[in-house]
Amino acid sequence: MRTITWDDEKQVVQMIDQRILPQEFKLLSFDTYQGIADAIQTMVIRGAPAIGAAAAYGMAMAAFNSRATSVDQMVEDLTEAGEALNASRPTAVNLAWAVKRMLKATDAFEGSVADLRAHFLTLAKAIADEDVAINKRIAEHGAALIEDGDQVVHHCNTGALATVDWGTALGVIRMAHEQGKNIHVFVDETRPRLQGARLTAWELEQYGISYDIITDSSSGYLMRAGQVQKVIFGADRVAANGDVANKIGSYMLALAAYDNGIPCYSVFPISTVDFELERGDLIPIEERDEGEVLGISFEGQRVAPETASARNPAFDVTPNRLLSGWVTEVGVIYPPFKTSLQAAMAK
Amino acid sequence: MRTITWDDEKQVVQMIDQRILPQEFKLLSFDTYQGIADAIQTMVIRGAPAIGAAAAYGMAMAAFNSRATSVDQMVEDLTEAGEALNASRPTAVNLAWAVKRMLKATDAFEGSVADLRAHFLTLAKAIADEDVAINKRIAEHGAALIEDGDQVVHHCNTGALATVDWGTALGVIRMAHEQGKNIHVFVDETRPRLQGARLTAWELEQYGISYDIITDSSSGYLMRAGQVQKVIFGADRVAANGDVANKIGSYMLALAAYDNGIPCYSVFPISTVDFELERGDLIPIEERDEGEVLGISFEGQRVAPETASARNPAFDVTPNRLLSGWVTEVGVIYPPFKTSLQAAMAK
Repeated sequence: MRTITWDDEKQVVQMIDQRILPQEFKLLSFDTYQGIADAIQTMVIRGAPAIGAAAAYGMAMAAFNSRATSVDQMVEDLTEAGEALNASRPTAVNLAWAVKRMLKATDAFEGSVADLRAHFLTLAKAIADEDVAINKRIAEHGAALIEDGDQVVHHCNTGALATVDWGTALGVIRMAHEQGKNIHVFVDETRPRLQGARLTAWELEQYGISYDIITDSSSGYLMRAGQVQKVIFGADRVAANGDVANKIGSYMLALAAYDNGIPCYSVFPISTVDFELERGDLIPIEERDEGEVLGISFEGQRVAPETASARNPAFDVTPNRLLSGWVTEVGVIYPPFKTSLQAAMAK
Repeated sequence: MRTITWDDEKQVVQMIDQRILPQEFKLLSFDTYQGIADAIQTMVIRGAPAIGAAAAYGMAMAAFNSRATSVDQMVEDLTEAGEALNASRPTAVNLAWAVKRMLKATDAFEGSVADLRAHFLTLAKAIADEDVAINKRIAEHGAALIEDGDQVVHHCNTGALATVDWGTALGVIRMAHEQGKNIHVFVDETRPRLQGARLTAWELEQYGISYDIITDSSSGYLMRAGQVQKVIFGADRVAANGDVANKIGSYMLALAAYDNGIPCYSVFPISTVDFELERGDLIPIEERDEGEVLGISFEGQRVAPETASARNPAFDVTPNRLLSGWVTEVGVIYPPFKTSLQAAMAK
């Protein structure tokens, strides 16, 4: 079961509606790129690798619906679609990467409008398939870091639901479990949208992996109490120096790991690295609607005063000095990240 | 308006029900010490200084209801009540301190059963009054640390509602505001029970102080973005070496402040210091019901899977190395805490 697919019969893009999991499992269909951009923005689909695939399918859908009668005209339509998709979530680099890769396929394209349409669909499907294959390679490299008996803190959702299938950081945990290692996961609930309590807990139940949900501010306590052996999370955009932008809370989690001498890994495909960005503090951070913070209720009752205001940064940047390593499809990359990555890519 | 009072006419203890604020303002009445212990346990009243006063009133109520015909018999009843009150919240030292102080008043008591009853009520009222006076002295010392234009991160609720009146860390902010300083508060929502979003936001609105609610994992981002000048929180129990047990999340907040070179203060009355405890890791940490973590809903819908489990430590320990200072009624105490406190107390 993939989070996103192209239905060849109905010519629609189908996505699992992640906003209503785990209470309800429902597929939504989209037949315009605008609908797909909206689904990314409203978080029907989320997770950096998954929204990369969604953007690729969005571009294929734009080609499918374009009324252009020449390739040049169609490229204009596709460029417009790419801008709309890019604007749907500003922080994740995979989205921009997928749009760029799709548009590149139009360079000096030789063939008809129908050919370009078919080529775009083939390419979008290849990007989705590639995500699954890459994630499995990532998981194999990462699982080697997990030891039998480890208790692992995991932030947000980075599982099959955050990708086309299999997952990144949670894929590592899943692979270690499939290798027969006995592990326990402390699942950061991950305020404000609670992707940990909602999606990661649900996935871990599917895989039969032992876990406890914790509030995001509890991991430091568990580390000081000697109950944590590894910390692991994903990435939404990685700067060339190794700084990692990821779900809000990753920075404070990495700080606590560092303070307690616990290894902390960020897990992502190489496509997440923005080689043009020198440092993490140059990454634009999306601030989302304050309703995500204020909309919380407890025992059925709204908590905040009706007149309250909130700040809601969706991501933060973990400086490279706090990370023990990156887990990627080309292997585990250790500091200094820039030179280690160059060496790994050259192999 | 005090959080807890003894009603002389009805001979009951009245408390503001803090579980239903800010949606509803309601007073509850208690006429047994067991009812008061239960109110502490279920968090009708919370905040270390407030539950100290509640324990004192609980002891006065035990004396009031005792059917003992001799002082010795009554001391037995009071000892039993003290044990029940001590068991209601294990981490806060103020509770044990208040029970101990009340019981000490029975040592070599000369007078009748009626005299002891009256003496206990007078003493409980004195403990409550003293809390208010001490908090105002704390606030004056602390307000001197806050500069005009400061943006301050505050954790949990440490305001009038956490004390008999006025507050500790939030009292400092209130005093700085009353001195005409222009300040803005980033209110940690404080999962799991959300005392920040619920109570601190409500208090700040009463005082007319500018604020935004944030998720507990957002403060690190705001600090790295240069938007925070001070970090301030209370304490539930302080070890002799200066380690501070406080609401879960304080440790990770202090880590982020330290990593960004931002002053971080813990604010409390000296009665919070447990001179017999050498280090913070010896402080017993209350783990509360997992329902407090799992009971969260978002946009009206329960989030976690029905079968999910959770861990719920209610406090953590911030090591003294991360704190810039303690703010107390005898002044601001700087590291090394043990010797500085001795010097301040000797004055």
